Amino acid sequence: MARAERFLQACRGEQVDAPPVWLMRQAGRYLPEYQKVRARTDFLGLCKTPEWAAEVTLQPVDILGVDAAIIFSDILIPVEAMGMKLVFDDHGPGFPDPIRDEKAVDALTIPDPQDRTGFVLEAIRLTVKALGGRVPLIGFAGAPYTLLSYMVEGGSSRNFENTKRMMYTRPDLVHRALEKITETQLRYLRAQVAAGARAIQVFDSWGGHLAPDDFREFAAPYARRILDGMKDAGVPRIYFVLDGGTQLPEIQRCGADVVGLDWRTPLGWARSVLGERQAVQGNLDPCALLGSQDTLRRKVKGLLDDNAGRPGHVVNLGHGILPMTPPEHARAFVEMVHELGARP
Amino acid sequence: MARAERFLQACRGEQVDAPPVWLMRQAGRYLPEYQKVRARTDFLGLCKTPEWAAEVTLQPVDILGVDAAIIFSDILIPVEAMGMKLVFDDHGPGFPDPIRDEKAVDALTIPDPQDRTGFVLEAIRLTVKALGGRVPLIGFAGAPYTLLSYMVEGGSSRNFENTKRMMYTRPDLVHRALEKITETQLRYLRAQVAAGARAIQVFDSWGGHLAPDDFREFAAPYARRILDGMKDAGVPRIYFVLDGGTQLPEIQRCGADVVGLDWRTPLGWARSVLGERQAVQGNLDPCALLGSQDTLRRKVKGLLDDNAGRPGHVVNLGHGILPMTPPEHARAFVEMVHELGARP
Repeated sequence: MARAERFLQACRGEQVDAPPVWLMRQAGRYLPEYQKVRARTDFLGLCKTPEWAAEVTLQPVDILGVDAAIIFSDILIPVEAMGMKLVFDDHGPGFPDPIRDEKAVDALTIPDPQDRTGFVLEAIRLTVKALGGRVPLIGFAGAPYTLLSYMVEGGSSRNFENTKRMMYTRPDLVHRALEKITETQLRYLRAQVAAGARAIQVFDSWGGHLAPDDFREFAAPYARRILDGMKDAGVPRIYFVLDGGTQLPEIQRCGADVVGLDWRTPLGWARSVLGERQAVQGNLDPCALLGSQDTLRRKVKGLLDDNAGRPGHVVNLGHGILPMTPPEHARAFVEMVHELGARP
Repeated sequence: MARAERFLQACRGEQVDAPPVWLMRQAGRYLPEYQKVRARTDFLGLCKTPEWAAEVTLQPVDILGVDAAIIFSDILIPVEAMGMKLVFDDHGPGFPDPIRDEKAVDALTIPDPQDRTGFVLEAIRLTVKALGGRVPLIGFAGAPYTLLSYMVEGGSSRNFENTKRMMYTRPDLVHRALEKITETQLRYLRAQVAAGARAIQVFDSWGGHLAPDDFREFAAPYARRILDGMKDAGVPRIYFVLDGGTQLPEIQRCGADVVGLDWRTPLGWARSVLGERQAVQGNLDPCALLGSQDTLRRKVKGLLDDNAGRPGHVVNLGHGILPMTPPEHARAFVEMVHELGARP
């Protein structure tokens, strides 16, 4: 039964037979099996059809041999439920009507998760049933600051100038929007756990773009509120800030059970900042799956050495797996972690 | 004569009457005066016409009141001189024939700076003459890893997958290219100092995208070789790694006189890692110039407080000034630094 419990044990800081491993975006474009399902519909259609979302969620469990599944969805789904029109095109996600003023902020609603995102909850129930206890399923949500920046920019951004301009001219408005987003995510995550998710991850994809004082004011308090609010749900809470290396002291105080690290952050150093009580997750450069097997093996060994056998390490990439990754390299990564990290 | 020497004194770690300040990309699109000159030609044409390059280099000295000028040019200019076709379009710079194999690496030449980049040296001479000692002029070059990644990707990139794939499959080839780039930059920087530059900055714009082990193997040794090779030129050497916060211990060992910090890196923490011998440069979020004057003032104060009055602080943005910045905000920033940082 090692595989079924390995991930949750590591999240709790317990010793395991071998480090658990999963990959951010493991249900995704690099898999031909995913492409086949995706061909039936568009991206949002896939997110909103529970049977298909469950199908692609399950694929990497068998194909790669990972120790956890993560529900296939997108962090912007609950934002659409707040009343914003959401589109996906070749440039990625977009909100054609970004929020830039008081009226737009006031128009945002706090949706009931069952009413407006019931398809995600149904996908979770179907996935949990199909998994039959083989590995746990992770639920997730975007961190409030990251969602806000998408909502203000209208999509992804290089400099986040609209979001920051609003922060630096109308902080009151930004905080008001963040309050609504936070409450929405909290309800959404609780509903995911009620539907069967056995861990949750909060993705702060753009929090790492903030200066430390702004992270402290606009990102950390809301992430903390979600993590605190999920404490009594009894599942491990993972907080991942992309490019968050220099914010680690503040991230530490957000109180996650597991801190996700991107590939630029030395894992051993991160553990020394975080202390003993928090587990870590990460952090291989996704590009390492594009190189030779020798390089990959050396890098997996380096990653495990950097952790020095301490309990509380969930192995993962430091960011989502890239679309051009050969699936056999992803599988080799999982096998190497289990082999090289096995306790003697 | 305070203004003329302030910048060089701070680079050497000496006490100054008020912190010197300049802005990365201070000669640039946000200035209507720049736009006027730029309208005469295209971007490369501006770089290659010494009179015009000198003209835009001088503009911010008077308009903003900065304590240093930096020669208007582009880090890819000496790469073109190595034999690669370079184009600039709406998407930024591009190499239509990126280097992806042995033949392409072997075809790279190490150019004579006077022969192939004489227009930059002439622009420096003209600028120095026109400055008449008011403020010093900074010369610059790209760090070898950053230039390599442009040369392999063919332009800027989100994930640098081609560069990293080459690093992880043909490291020998990558090192061979880096050797040639390093020698080219070293000759180019020495020629800039001979022409009148009184400090040099090495820009490692993409080094911060590397995992620590890769930074140690592919970025740091070549940056260090340039910095070491410039030591006897007798001018302050600045090394700026964008998003390099988690690489600071390795950056420290590269031996620059001044370490440039991006806005995500807490300045006080950086100084504690770097120790007493190195000065720092930075690091206001460029977006702070888009907000209110109150916010800007608070942020400038926070930045100066973070440095706690230690000598060896050159104030700057943490990245280039954004094109949509109101020039009067840039000027206010310079004035606030001088006012709030003045020694009583």
